[in-house]
Amino acid sequence: MSGAGATAAILIIGNEILSGRTQDVNVKFIAGRLSARGIKLREVRVVPDEEDAIIAAARALSGAYTYVFSTGGIGPTHDDITAACMAKAFGATLEINAEAKARMAARCAERGVPLTEGRLRMTRVPAGAALIDNPVSIAPGFKISNVYVMAGIPDIMQAMFLTLEPGLAQGAPVLSRSVSGRMLESEIAAPLEEIQKQYPDVDIGSYPALGKDDPHVSIVLRAVDEQRLSAAMELVLEMAKGFDPAVAVI
Amino acid sequence: MSGAGATAAILIIGNEILSGRTQDVNVKFIAGRLSARGIKLREVRVVPDEEDAIIAAARALSGAYTYVFSTGGIGPTHDDITAACMAKAFGATLEINAEAKARMAARCAERGVPLTEGRLRMTRVPAGAALIDNPVSIAPGFKISNVYVMAGIPDIMQAMFLTLEPGLAQGAPVLSRSVSGRMLESEIAAPLEEIQKQYPDVDIGSYPALGKDDPHVSIVLRAVDEQRLSAAMELVLEMAKGFDPAVAVI
Repeated sequence: MSGAGATAAILIIGNEILSGRTQDVNVKFIAGRLSARGIKLREVRVVPDEEDAIIAAARALSGAYTYVFSTGGIGPTHDDITAACMAKAFGATLEINAEAKARMAARCAERGVPLTEGRLRMTRVPAGAALIDNPVSIAPGFKISNVYVMAGIPDIMQAMFLTLEPGLAQGAPVLSRSVSGRMLESEIAAPLEEIQKQYPDVDIGSYPALGKDDPHVSIVLRAVDEQRLSAAMELVLEMAKGFDPAVAVI
Repeated sequence: MSGAGATAAILIIGNEILSGRTQDVNVKFIAGRLSARGIKLREVRVVPDEEDAIIAAARALSGAYTYVFSTGGIGPTHDDITAACMAKAFGATLEINAEAKARMAARCAERGVPLTEGRLRMTRVPAGAALIDNPVSIAPGFKISNVYVMAGIPDIMQAMFLTLEPGLAQGAPVLSRSVSGRMLESEIAAPLEEIQKQYPDVDIGSYPALGKDDPHVSIVLRAVDEQRLSAAMELVLEMAKGFDPAVAVI
């Protein structure tokens, strides 16, 4: 499957993000993996653990992009409602998945713990959905329609993502180069815009960082075509050296 | 102004977040401040630095919530298109703001640097918008309709937010307590759900953390009413002590 034009969105289901209690780190991980695979991440949404909000966002993103990756809300407690919401969003019934239950039962037997109601709850999956393996703690994620539903805990989410990743489209990876130095954005703005105009197929971004009276800017160039990227990079580098001869290249 | 029912969304304008290059930290800061002020953060969206995406998201969020806080894209370089997009989104013209220009000119004179095209670009604001002071680097943010448009650099964004914050609604702050201990979510799920049913006005969340064979769970209770919060907390604490007598209370 070609990744040309494959797009993606991330849906974070997380009261703990919206309350400011937890720092999300899942977006950066998924975004980096998608970027390396040439899949364009076009949108991220964070919504509360509420049925209407989850269903509306899942449907909107599913209709707009090739893939949706959701994280959070698939645990065993009362506030974990993602599986039920995804079933509703795509018109499926939520049921105990035989394979997921078998895996959970085997793990319980292995550890000598009972297959409680709570553990069983984590094996409920929308009918027809494909399981996403959970190498860390057994309870699986699942794929329904074009939505990959994963855990919110970063370690588990990452393990799940790595198991599903080979099934995603493979696009031309986006190559990236960057130049960082002691420059002022307001001074490089005009020459940088000229370079961008010459290389519309190279995405040139300028990111200032604050330092105490020591302003630094990182200029990031991203493109699929290595030759075009290098050519644009040469112009940016020459321009940047006019402001800071000791500019760093990454 | 009463904050009863005041809601908010955050709009992050950021290719650098969607590419996985940069870890967003603005959401956590704004979310924490809003939470303390009793304003409910209901949604976060991250969109690329593209006109259509920015305008569509700004309009959608502006229509759905009391406040929208945007970060990113108000610098002087070609990839900073937020001010122009916000003007378009709300039918205003983009123009050099006299007050912003005066501040920028004064700063330039003070530092003996020229008022370049790039610096002037940062004084363009939609007509009729109110300025948001920038105590760090002069170039202001602005408020148009119910959208507060801020810089993306965390230090500057935070300084801007603190200057605008007194103008926001003041709601009853959401109080929070939490219990953390060696528990399994699948085992506390049933008793915790019982407590949630008794206290529907207390928002009870369960957040597992992975440890090597040492699973911990944080149970977070959030409510406006301190007495109801304390009563629910007592039940949660008693329940948690049944699993881990050394449970920690925060």
